[in-house]
Amino acid sequence: MDNPVLVEVFRGGLVESRHRGAVAVVDADGKTAFAVGDIAAPIFPRSAVKPLQALPLVESGAADRYGLIDEELALACASHSGEPAHVEGVARMLSLAGLDVSALACGSHWPSSQAAAFALAKTGTPSALHNNCSGKHAGFLCVACSLGIDHAGYWRPEHAVQLEVHAVLEDLTGVPLPPDRRAIDGCSVPTWALPLKNLALAFVKFGTGRGLPPARARAAARLLAACAQKPWYVAGTGRFCTEVMHQFGSRALVKTGAEGVFCGVLTELGLGIAVKFDDGAGRAAEAVMAALLARFLDLSDRDRAALARFVQPALRNWNGIEVGALRLTKRI
Amino acid sequence: MDNPVLVEVFRGGLVESRHRGAVAVVDADGKTAFAVGDIAAPIFPRSAVKPLQALPLVESGAADRYGLIDEELALACASHSGEPAHVEGVARMLSLAGLDVSALACGSHWPSSQAAAFALAKTGTPSALHNNCSGKHAGFLCVACSLGIDHAGYWRPEHAVQLEVHAVLEDLTGVPLPPDRRAIDGCSVPTWALPLKNLALAFVKFGTGRGLPPARARAAARLLAACAQKPWYVAGTGRFCTEVMHQFGSRALVKTGAEGVFCGVLTELGLGIAVKFDDGAGRAAEAVMAALLARFLDLSDRDRAALARFVQPALRNWNGIEVGALRLTKRI
Repeated sequence: MDNPVLVEVFRGGLVESRHRGAVAVVDADGKTAFAVGDIAAPIFPRSAVKPLQALPLVESGAADRYGLIDEELALACASHSGEPAHVEGVARMLSLAGLDVSALACGSHWPSSQAAAFALAKTGTPSALHNNCSGKHAGFLCVACSLGIDHAGYWRPEHAVQLEVHAVLEDLTGVPLPPDRRAIDGCSVPTWALPLKNLALAFVKFGTGRGLPPARARAAARLLAACAQKPWYVAGTGRFCTEVMHQFGSRALVKTGAEGVFCGVLTELGLGIAVKFDDGAGRAAEAVMAALLARFLDLSDRDRAALARFVQPALRNWNGIEVGALRLTKRI
Repeated sequence: MDNPVLVEVFRGGLVESRHRGAVAVVDADGKTAFAVGDIAAPIFPRSAVKPLQALPLVESGAADRYGLIDEELALACASHSGEPAHVEGVARMLSLAGLDVSALACGSHWPSSQAAAFALAKTGTPSALHNNCSGKHAGFLCVACSLGIDHAGYWRPEHAVQLEVHAVLEDLTGVPLPPDRRAIDGCSVPTWALPLKNLALAFVKFGTGRGLPPARARAAARLLAACAQKPWYVAGTGRFCTEVMHQFGSRALVKTGAEGVFCGVLTELGLGIAVKFDDGAGRAAEAVMAALLARFLDLSDRDRAALARFVQPALRNWNGIEVGALRLTKRI
């Protein structure tokens, strides 16, 4: 099925580029509250499901055993920018489990924060701690160590930690995830192709606890509260996920994923959201997520003004001249 | 008209993202040799037309007056990476015209070369010389100074330099470019929306001289030769445009533009090429341009092997594991 154009990129008065995508908004009963495009086709959620992948960290008792604080739980759910406090937090998580950076299997990349990258380049090169997924990986390692399992190969599909993550994803999404739905994510752990509607369902269960066993619901609530309390640790300075959660607190959890994915939950409304752009355009996914927040949440004037720059972001050139804008089509 | 999917992004065995686009390949008579999608709809060529925008630099006599060498003519056609020799070359162009960096109106940004950006960050911040368009702007300034025109506002549509660039674009493309086709490019000069087929026609005229007045044909040949001789100055270390022109010399000129545009000319075959991806995906435009080179050029085994990594680029994760690939659909 062809997904419709949801975002147009204007330059002057003409459309320069356009992005097609699909959106699923569902309630905790799995009933569709809003949908555009094909919400049954499997898509890779990538980093958008990190909050779900962090559930075993709490459920296993590892978070309690190591006394993880909100900042560290938020890092386990994060695609962080590699800023100094992100890196220090992940290092602390590892040390609490008796490990260090050498245990991380996520690989290294430069911080996405330009300031952090430039500062680091003055004295060295990035380690796996700077990888945007390092907090998730530190969480996986804490689970293995807390359970007394050999942590070697914790990223492989057949390792006990990944088997548990797989079970959590099947439980929350309500769909079986056989090996032919599996690919390898940027940080080497499995990523599982899922229909958007099931992804939205998983997020509303996560954000409300509805349909979850009590222990799983409590673990989700703890992670949600940690992200709401410490949203800077979920992304970083100036990032959309951080800004939204800073503004709305526990009313909304939003999480970006590579290749044009965005997921979220509006807790007070009991609505889960999943967005995927066919072409992988993050700029479009972010604008649509902002528009969905504006559509569904009961906003103050201040809230609405704060969201506006994300819903219809201006394109400015190197001289700061406004040369165009992203504009949503009428579908949202 | 809906353009077809030309490139699929595989992760494991599944398609994660897909890119729609259009391709025009035309001969110097304007006859279409190959086309996919809508080649009549106007698109913004952005930086892909820099070689055409550089024609006044030679035609006006400015290149001769200032004794510009091949490196500098290539910089006038370039989207360079801001590496030190790029920056030094542009500074020299300006000094030959009696100007300095303060005359540049392109704005500043960090070098796209990570190594150059990190080196610069150790001691300072970027100037307009580091802007990828600074060579084109230095060329515009040389034209103004050579003609004895006030160079202030050389980037405005109504300035004599931009009026001349506009006339060149109308001449080569064969289409009128009224003000409602104009928008502002990233570097503040006008960009004019053009049908892909006319963009391809302009490139084949540029690359073969066919259909051009003798002086314009000579100017184009000089710019083409400069890019073929000094392809590093057209882009930079490891970049596709540089690699292709290094490999094929004057047989092929290729030039990238923002938002999924690629243009080129296969001089020995007398074919002009223009590619635009609907979503602005540069990764897709580059793969298709590589595939078009492989389809039309008579290649040695070595040539074919060198192109293969651009035609079907592997996706590797942070550990270097191959997790997927871009694959062209059967249409090319």
